[in-house]
Formats: sequence, structure tokens, C-alpha cells
Amino acid sequence: MTDCHGDGEGDRSPLELYEQLAAQGDEVRVLKRGKAEEADVAAAVQLLLKMKVNYKQLTGQDYKAGCPPSENSVAPDDRKAADGATSEDTVDPWNVSTDSAKGVDYDKLIVRFGSSKVDKELVDRIEKVSGQKPHHFLRRGIFFSHRDMHQVLDAYEKHKSFYLYTGRGPSSEAMHVGHLIPFIFTKWLQDVFDIPLVIQLTDDEKYLWKDLTLEECHRFAVENAKDIIACGFDVNKTFIFSDLEYMGASPEFYRNVVKVQKHVTFNQVKGIFGFTDSDCIGKISFPAIQAAPSFSSSFPQIFKGRKDIQCLIPCAIDQDPYFRMTRDVAPRIGYTKPALLHSTFFPALQGAQTKMSASDANTSIFLTDTPKQIKNKVNKHAFSGGKDTVEEHRKYGGNPDIDVAFMYLTFFLEDDEQLEKIRQDYLSGALLTGELKKLLIETLQPIISQHQERRKQVTAETVKEFMTPRPLNFNL
Amino acid sequence: MTDCHGDGEGDRSPLELYEQLAAQGDEVRVLKRGKAEEADVAAAVQLLLKMKVNYKQLTGQDYKAGCPPSENSVAPDDRKAADGATSEDTVDPWNVSTDSAKGVDYDKLIVRFGSSKVDKELVDRIEKVSGQKPHHFLRRGIFFSHRDMHQVLDAYEKHKSFYLYTGRGPSSEAMHVGHLIPFIFTKWLQDVFDIPLVIQLTDDEKYLWKDLTLEECHRFAVENAKDIIACGFDVNKTFIFSDLEYMGASPEFYRNVVKVQKHVTFNQVKGIFGFTDSDCIGKISFPAIQAAPSFSSSFPQIFKGRKDIQCLIPCAIDQDPYFRMTRDVAPRIGYTKPALLHSTFFPALQGAQTKMSASDANTSIFLTDTPKQIKNKVNKHAFSGGKDTVEEHRKYGGNPDIDVAFMYLTFFLEDDEQLEKIRQDYLSGALLTGELKKLLIETLQPIISQHQERRKQVTAETVKEFMTPRPLNFNL
Repeated sequence: MTDCHGDGEGDRSPLELYEQLAAQGDEVRVLKRGKAEEADVAAAVQLLLKMKVNYKQLTGQDYKAGCPPSENSVAPDDRKAADGATSEDTVDPWNVSTDSAKGVDYDKLIVRFGSSKVDKELVDRIEKVSGQKPHHFLRRGIFFSHRDMHQVLDAYEKHKSFYLYTGRGPSSEAMHVGHLIPFIFTKWLQDVFDIPLVIQLTDDEKYLWKDLTLEECHRFAVENAKDIIACGFDVNKTFIFSDLEYMGASPEFYRNVVKVQKHVTFNQVKGIFGFTDSDCIGKISFPAIQAAPSFSSSFPQIFKGRKDIQCLIPCAIDQDPYFRMTRDVAPRIGYTKPALLHSTFFPALQGAQTKMSASDANTSIFLTDTPKQIKNKVNKHAFSGGKDTVEEHRKYGGNPDIDVAFMYLTFFLEDDEQLEKIRQDYLSGALLTGELKKLLIETLQPIISQHQERRKQVTAETVKEFMTPRPLNFNL
Repeated sequence: MTDCHGDGEGDRSPLELYEQLAAQGDEVRVLKRGKAEEADVAAAVQLLLKMKVNYKQLTGQDYKAGCPPSENSVAPDDRKAADGATSEDTVDPWNVSTDSAKGVDYDKLIVRFGSSKVDKELVDRIEKVSGQKPHHFLRRGIFFSHRDMHQVLDAYEKHKSFYLYTGRGPSSEAMHVGHLIPFIFTKWLQDVFDIPLVIQLTDDEKYLWKDLTLEECHRFAVENAKDIIACGFDVNKTFIFSDLEYMGASPEFYRNVVKVQKHVTFNQVKGIFGFTDSDCIGKISFPAIQAAPSFSSSFPQIFKGRKDIQCLIPCAIDQDPYFRMTRDVAPRIGYTKPALLHSTFFPALQGAQTKMSASDANTSIFLTDTPKQIKNKVNKHAFSGGKDTVEEHRKYGGNPDIDVAFMYLTFFLEDDEQLEKIRQDYLSGALLTGELKKLLIETLQPIISQHQERRKQVTAETVKEFMTPRPLNFNL
């Protein structure tokens, strides 16, 4: 199917367009169900989105599956959909998808998940308590949602410490720039608050979910640990562990896993994660393994047996189901609920409808990409919010909200003023798509090169040091 | 409700008796569902059984719930029930019950579980291969069923070794004589074949199933280990482990647990163990933890990483569901299926309808009982197959098949000739119930005293030695 741009939709009736849209929706679903490349799916979704915009222009109504065009005005509960977001965003640890080019509707997600918005008051308070300018991920709403952050800060002000826990599922050797987001932010939190950090590599999870051997998953864990270490973590303050190793090295960790497993039923994980009777018992019981590091008693070597030190988990919002479950169980087993800071998703090059994929090289910038590869990928694959011709672009301006190059800059360009100028210039049409992409390329190339340099310094001994259960340099 | 003996059932119509039986059946179910003492349940079951016998005498038909008495002859598929066994024996790791005073119908169980009978040919072969007289548990059909024993012996004849794995769920500090059966037999197998032995204490399982803390379950595991060690195991050939300890001490063990967990679905454990959606995820995934010791790679310190050494599991037949599952998974993860030797159940003092219970002191002889307690318990609680009066007994003889004192002697009296003479004398009426009980008391008292003596010698250091992961004295 070809791009419908310039196909002259004006010649078609609303009903014809409606039927084409329905067919394209089916196409997307078929691709998603099948083993299609993520880039193909993203392209099909983009087309669907553009057809929806055209449909709206032609009929004055939002396209709604099963509701052919009519003369009625737009229904009130469709208003949200009118600006591109639909109520059908899927967000769980294994699936993130939306039909909106702007990406997932995060405000809606806060309501659905029952978390709290990271508002100006909280950002100001973090600044006050830490005495540091808030990270641009906080200033720009990239970490947009939280649970119990005020409680953490209240305690911190009373000199009660906390610790950080984040993680990664090592499904391949290759990590992309999106995978760095939680680690970059976690490092900032650690630097600012000077607290212990534990990083879980769920190699057991990847074995259970993917067609991989235990050995492969564990090797990916070790390779990923190198990229994580290259983010600059301090070995005296950070413990990185693979589940396959640490479970067999810490009776205390296993005890907490079993405690959680006793207090969660199949009915509950079915409701939270959508498991079915056909799922293996490993998947069904895994959530307890991701829950256990939320309790300080899982790390007696670090916390000297103390089980009352609160945990703060910076993670992407799709991991929240694990920690909703954890927070539900915590008081029942005598532990403190972990606090959370949730990030938005890092968009795929093809657009914000999906997360990036470590298994499709063209959906993302990998940490192993050369400067040339970065340039080519951005120029070739980054979905543009610009107009089709320079003339149109100069006249009408671009749309930074759906432009992937601009989105990436919000993640990686630290200078707020420069970013705002770029946004204004793009909106006005002063900045062309090619120029915007060039700015992104020039921002990413040194970041990736420097990461590669630091990663080269990470030896097997360094990895081993980080991954050995041991005391950290804290007096708790 | 009082015992119905001598109540003059002759005065009642078949329908009246039928209705009383139905009511007694309800009573038993209510007791079983409720928190009734096991002794009360056993007593109610005994009464039910006697009422069934009376019913049969009066009507010439077996009592069948929902089928009031008629003039029809006994249906062919009821013939089995006519000699006391019913088709409703319940045998799984958490429930064993039957309405027959003779106990579970083991021949039926072999058919239902798809195992093989330990026949004379196998017993003779064990004698030939080992060069030792078969243990009386083999000679007397106490270990009555097996899986793949011939394969184990074939390999052993070709100088291919195997190892033994058995275990115990430490639900309390107190063990009773019935708990010794698998250990006594396992020790004999180890002595005869000179092979490594691993003994799993499933303290995690007890935590998941019972209203106990992790600390209690682990303490019970250590206490039970002392009783197991007192059976005379050689520390150079035997590794005893608690799941709560060993899981956190062996990445290889956890890897095998995860491998099994990946290859078993909830549907499967639902079918095998009867789990429901309301069960906690710990129970659902636990079977993998009981499965993992069946694979030699779970013990690299003993088997030096070899994963091809076959496992033989001596256990009570109620544990077979775990190992049916294990045998199903083994080839799919590249491992050898474990072989099995299944024992019958050791009857409760109140009769063979149920297993003994560690939680009800009157259902069993405990390993901590004094000679006087043993005497009192046997005299007071051991269900008798004798007649009501000495006169009747002398005239008609007793029934050893349902007499608990006689059953216990088959387990603990080693001399075949003496046992057979006792049986004949009891059958003929020459031996009275009191005399039979005296023989049992005199057999048990020294066995228990000697066990207590040996247990006293077991120090905390000895336990630690047995429970430390380490090489054993074998060149594999």
C-alpha cells in the first residue's frame, strides 16, 4: 500500500474514505499480529494516522471504527480523539502502542494507573531539597508521573535516606539510546541525593519470554551491564545484578521472592498482566522477582539487614504494573511501599506510536552506531512533522509535536533556550526538516561517541566488581 | 454420634440404614472441610465404613450415594467396592483419603498413575544386581510401584552410576515413625548401591501452604534434618538441603528451576495438582522447585557439572504427581527422566483411611514419644481388626488386613517368619488383640529409643556439615 499523500482524497466520498480507513486499520492489526518488522508496522500506523486526519478534514468528524460517516456533530467523548489521542493506548510491560503520532496520552495514563503528575510544585521541591537545578527530564515532563515522591522527600529532609532501584530486561546485546533514559536520570538522582543504587538485569525474565537460551540471556545481561556502567555509575555506590546469578547467591533475595509469591494470587497477576492459563508457570511467578529488589532486606550486604529503607524506582511507565502489585503486597509482608518516578517512552524513529525495538536496527539509534549510521538513520527514518515541500513548510511551518527529530532533541539537548528557539523556528517554518535533523545528528553523534569511548574502558573486571554482592560506601 | 455396633440394625429397614449412611457421609464431609482433629475425622470415617458393611449385609448391595436400596443385584463395576475399596481414593501431595479400612487400593493407583508394579521379577533382579537380600519394604510390597527401575538397573550393570533423591516437607518440628519409611529405605538403597544421595527439605513449600513464617519453616527444616541424619546417613555421601538456603546458594539450581518453569503451563499444573485461579503464584510455580533436584546439574559440587547422571527417587506415592510432571519436562530441556520407587502410606493409628498427621499427636507414634507414650497410644488408639469379645475372637479370629498394629509390624518387624506366624495366629484367633499390640509395642519401643539416642548425638555442627554444598566422596 502506497502513501495516500497527494492521492486526491477530494475525489472520494466520505464513505469510500471510511472504508479505506477501516481496511487500513485491519492491515495494521494484521501486521501487529504477524511477525512484521516494527518499521513496517510503524509505517502502516503512520498511514492510518494520515488517513484519519484527511477523514477529519473531509467529514468534520473523527474516524471511529464501526461508525460510518454521518452528519452528526462530533460526540463530546470524542473530543480527546480529535487531537490525535485515542482511548485505546496499550501500555503494559510487553506492549506499548497508540494510534496517535504524538504518542501515548500520558495524562490519561496517570488517571488510569492512579499515579500522580510530576507538577511544578514537585519539581521545585526536588530543587529545594537537593539544592540542584532539576534535570531536564524533570523540567520537560519526561519523568511525568510519580508515586509517593513527597513522602520520600519528607523523609529525606528529616535525614532519613532512601535507595534507588532500576533495571533492564537484557533481550539482546544491543542497546539503543532510548534504553539510556532511565539510567541517565537514575545517575542524576544518585549524584544529587548521594544514595545507594541497585540495578536488576532480568535475564531470567528474558529466558521465560523469548526464544533464547539461559546462556544467551545471561551473556546479554553482562553485555548490557557494560553499557550501563558506561553511563558513569560509581562502583562504590552501585550494585548491578543478574537474576540468574543473584538468586543463587542470596538466600535473603529468594526469601523476599517467596514472601511476595505467597501474597499474590493467579487471579491478581491475570488482572494486572493479562496472563492466561496457557502461560508457563515461570511467567506467572516472575512478577515477584521484579518486586523483591523494592525491599532493602533483599540486599543485606548493602543495608546490613535493615528492612525499613525506602526504595525509589525510576522507570518507564510501562513497568508500573509490576510496582502497583509490589505496593499492594508490601504492607502485608511488613515492608515499606516503594516510591516511583515514571518516564514517558522514547519514540521509535518512525514515530511516537511505538517504543523503539532492540530487534529492528532501523527503529532506533543504537549505542554501537557510527556517526555515519546515525546521520543516515536520522535522515532516512526519523518521522518528520514538516510539510511536503520547502514552500509549504516556509508558509505553514512544521509540527514539532509529532516530529521525531525534535522529540529526540527534548531528550538529549540540555539547553532549554536553544531547544525553545528550535521549536519556535520549526513552528514558524524558519527551520527546515533537514536543518532540524542536522541539529539532532550533531547532538547525538558526540553523545554516542563518548558513550562508546567510556564503554571501551569497561573491562570484565569492572563488570565483575559491579556485579559482586558486597557492601557499598554508605553508613546506613 | 455413637458407635453403631450392637445397635441392632436388624430392626431398621434398608432405606432407614441408607438414610443414616447418607447422613454420616455428610458428617464426614463437614468434618473434613472444617478444622476438625484428624482423629475425629478418622473416627467418623470408621463409623461410616462399619455402617457400609452392615448395609451390605442387610441389602446384599454396596452403599452408593444417591442410589437408595433396590432389589437389583450388585452392578459389575461395584464388585471392587464390595471388598472394601472404592473408586474414590484421593491421592495427591496434600490429600490422601479412602473409605476402605484396608487403605488405598494400590493396584488401582498403579493403573491410574500409569506406573509399574514392583513384581517378583524386579525384586529378584534388585537382589541379583545388588548382591543383597532385598529390604523387607521390597519383599512385602511396601515399595509397591516404580517407574524405569529396570532402566536404572540395566545402566548400573554396565557400570553407569545413578543417584538418589528424596525429601521432606518440614511442616513441624515433630516427625512420626511414618516419616522414617522413605529414609530407612533410601539408606538401604544407598548402602547397597553405594551412590550419592540428596535430600530436599521444602521449607519454602511449607511457608507457601501453611500459616507459618519463613523462620519457623526453616527451623523445622533444620530440626527435621537431625531426625533424618539420625537414620544413619553417611555425611561423605549425603547432601541435605533446605530450599530457602540452597536456592540462594546455587545459581545452577535456580537455572534448572527456571528451565522447568518455562516448560510447564498453568493449565498443566491445574490438571496435575488441582490448583485454581485463587491460589498464590508461589504454589503455582513451586512444582518446579521439587522437580529441579531430579537433575544432576542442580548439584555441580557433587556431580562436577555432569548433567547425564540418572536420578532415582524413593518416595510415597502421593508425591508422584510432581515427578510425572518432571518426567514430562525432562526430555524437553535435555535431561534424563528420573526413575521412581513408590511406597504405600503408613497408616494412622486410627486406621488406613488417612495418612498420619504431624499436627495431631494421637494419630501417630512420634519420634519423641517415650516408651510409656508408645504403649498408651498403641493400646488406646490403634484400630483393631479383632472381634469385640475374647470369645468371638477365639472363635472367628481377627482380620490383620485392617488391623493397624499388624500393619505397623509389617513396616517394623524385620523377621518374615515371625511376622507370618503372627498373622496366622491372629487370623486363627490364637493371638488376641492385646497380645498383638504388645508385640508391636515391644518392637517399636527399642526402635524409637535407639533413634532418640542417635538423634542426641547429632550436633549443630553435624547438621551444618550435611547441609553445606560440597563435593561428596564419589568419583563420577
